[in-house]
Amino acid sequence: MPKGKPLVIAIDIGGTNLRAAFVDSGGRIFGRRRFTTILTRNGFITQLADVIRVMKAEEKRACAVGIGFPGPLKIDQGIVLTPPNIPDCTNLPLKRILERITNLPVFLENDANAAALGEYWLGAATGAESMVCITLGTGIGGGIVLNGKVWHGAGDIAGELGHMTVRPGGRVCGCGKHGCIETYASASGVAWTARARVRRNKKSAILRFVGGKMSAITSAIVYRAAIQGDRTAREVLEETGRILGAAIGNILNILNPAMIVLTGGLARAGRLLFHPLRAEVPKHCFPAAFRGTRVVPGKLGDDAGIAGAALSAFQRMKNC
Amino acid sequence: MPKGKPLVIAIDIGGTNLRAAFVDSGGRIFGRRRFTTILTRNGFITQLADVIRVMKAEEKRACAVGIGFPGPLKIDQGIVLTPPNIPDCTNLPLKRILERITNLPVFLENDANAAALGEYWLGAATGAESMVCITLGTGIGGGIVLNGKVWHGAGDIAGELGHMTVRPGGRVCGCGKHGCIETYASASGVAWTARARVRRNKKSAILRFVGGKMSAITSAIVYRAAIQGDRTAREVLEETGRILGAAIGNILNILNPAMIVLTGGLARAGRLLFHPLRAEVPKHCFPAAFRGTRVVPGKLGDDAGIAGAALSAFQRMKNC
Repeated sequence: MPKGKPLVIAIDIGGTNLRAAFVDSGGRIFGRRRFTTILTRNGFITQLADVIRVMKAEEKRACAVGIGFPGPLKIDQGIVLTPPNIPDCTNLPLKRILERITNLPVFLENDANAAALGEYWLGAATGAESMVCITLGTGIGGGIVLNGKVWHGAGDIAGELGHMTVRPGGRVCGCGKHGCIETYASASGVAWTARARVRRNKKSAILRFVGGKMSAITSAIVYRAAIQGDRTAREVLEETGRILGAAIGNILNILNPAMIVLTGGLARAGRLLFHPLRAEVPKHCFPAAFRGTRVVPGKLGDDAGIAGAALSAFQRMKNC
Repeated sequence: MPKGKPLVIAIDIGGTNLRAAFVDSGGRIFGRRRFTTILTRNGFITQLADVIRVMKAEEKRACAVGIGFPGPLKIDQGIVLTPPNIPDCTNLPLKRILERITNLPVFLENDANAAALGEYWLGAATGAESMVCITLGTGIGGGIVLNGKVWHGAGDIAGELGHMTVRPGGRVCGCGKHGCIETYASASGVAWTARARVRRNKKSAILRFVGGKMSAITSAIVYRAAIQGDRTAREVLEETGRILGAAIGNILNILNPAMIVLTGGLARAGRLLFHPLRAEVPKHCFPAAFRGTRVVPGKLGDDAGIAGAALSAFQRMKNC
C-alpha cells in the first residue's frame, strides 16, 4: 500500500451496483469493493454514509470523497436533480448530507464525465490536451475533457452526446425526442436494430441463440453471433459503427479534440465495430479534423468511473 | 481619442474587402478603413504591410497587430494554410513575414473565431461564460468561446459548424460531403432552397423580383419577398430556421453554452428566421440545455471580426 500520498475515497454509483475504492494522487487504485445499490432515498444515503465511514476507518489518510453519479447534477452544490435510475433521489442535496454525516469534503461528478476524466487521467487518453469520451451502455453517455478539466457547460449538462440527433424523425427516444443516437448505438439500440433485421432474415444465428424469442435479443448476443461469422449480426454492428462514425464526425467538426475514447460493453466489439466506424468518420468531418484525432476504445473498464470521481475530487479540494 | 490605453491594429480580411481599425484595451474601436483585398500573394503581403505601416505612423501607441483571416491556420505559428478565397496565399507564413517588415508582433486568428470573440467581448455575449457564434454568410463559419478564450482544438480547426451533417445523404457541399448545414442555411443554401420551392410555385414574388431568372435568386431577395408577405419566401426562411434550430440543439447537447449568437447577413432576417429556429431547438436537445441558453442575433455587424482580432492579440501578447 502506498504511503504518504493524499488519498480519496472514490465511489461510482450505478442503478444496479455501487463500486468504491481508494485512489491516491499518483493514480493508484486499491481496496476495491462492490455493493448492490439501495434504491430508496434513506436507504441510499445510509448505504453511502456507511461505505464512506468504513473506508475512512480503514485509511486514515482519506481526506475527501469523490462520487460519480448517473444523472443530471448541480455540480458545485452537489445536488442530485432527476436521476433516471434512482428516481427516489430527486433533488437530493447529497454533498451537504454526506459531508455532515462523514465529516469529509464530498465532490459529485456526473458518471459519464467521471469515466471521461478517468480515461484521460489513467487510461486511453493519458496526456491528451482534449478528449471526448462516449460510454456505450444501456444508454449513451458522454464526457468532454478540455485542458485536463471536465467541460460542464452553463447548466452542468454538457456532454449529453447520447441525445445528438442522427436520424431526423427517426426512432423515439426515452427523452421524448426522435432519432437520438442512443436509440441506435446503445445496447438497447443495437438490440432494436437486430430485431428489425432478424425479422427479414429468420436464418440468423441471433434468432437461434435466443430460441426464436425476439424480446430476448441483446447486444451481447448480437456480438456473440457476429464473432461466429453470422452475417446479419455483422451487418447490425456495421450499421451501428456507421451511425457512431457520423456522430463522431460531427463532434470532430465542432470540438476538434485530440482523442475520442469509446467505453462501455459495446466498445469491446473491437474491429467489427471500429472498422466501419473509422471508415464513416471522414465522410462527416474535415479531413484535417479526422487526421488529427485518434478514435480508440477505453482502457480502464469499470475503473474509469472510480478514477475520474477521484481526480474530480483532487482537482476541486483545497487541501488534503 | 482615448489616451494611454494600449492599442492594437486590428485587421479583418475577407475575399472581397479588407477592413482595419484601431482597438484599445477598453474596447474602443476607431480609425476604421476599408480596402479591396488584393488576391495575389505578393500584392496581398504588400497591401497588408502598407496598411500596418500607415496605421503605425498614425498611432504611436499601436503595439501589436491582430488579424482575422478566412480559412484554416496554424494559429500559434501564424501560418495561413489553404485559404479558399485567397488561393494564392497557400502555406503563407504571414505572421513571420509581417513581423519582419513592420517590426510589430502579429497574431492571426480564424475570421469566424474572431467574430465569436468580438461578440463575446463587446457584442451580444458580453460576460457569457461560454458562447458559440455561427456566422451565416456565403458559407457558414463558427467560433467557440469558453471561459473567455477561443477553443481551437487539437488541430486549430474547432468550430467548423458549417460542416455539421444535418441531412444524411443530402445536398453536396463544396467540402465534398453530403448534407452539411452550409448547403441549407448559408446565403447560397437559402437561394438553393428558394429555387427548389419556386419551381413548384411560379407565382412567388421571389420570381417576380428576379424577372423570372432563377439563377438571380439570392438570400437577400428571399428576405425582401418574405417581409412583403410572400408565402413561399416565408416558407424558405422557416425551413432554414428549422434546420439551424436542429443543428443548434445538437450543439447545446454537446457543449451546453450560455449563449448562441448568430451573425452575418441572414441573422438580420429577425423573427422570420428566429421564430421557427427557436421552436425547433427544444426538439433536438435536453430541456435543461435549452432553458439555460439564449439564442440571439449578433450586435457588432462588421465590427465583430475587428474586435475579436484585437482581443485575440491582447490575450496573446506579452507586454504592450
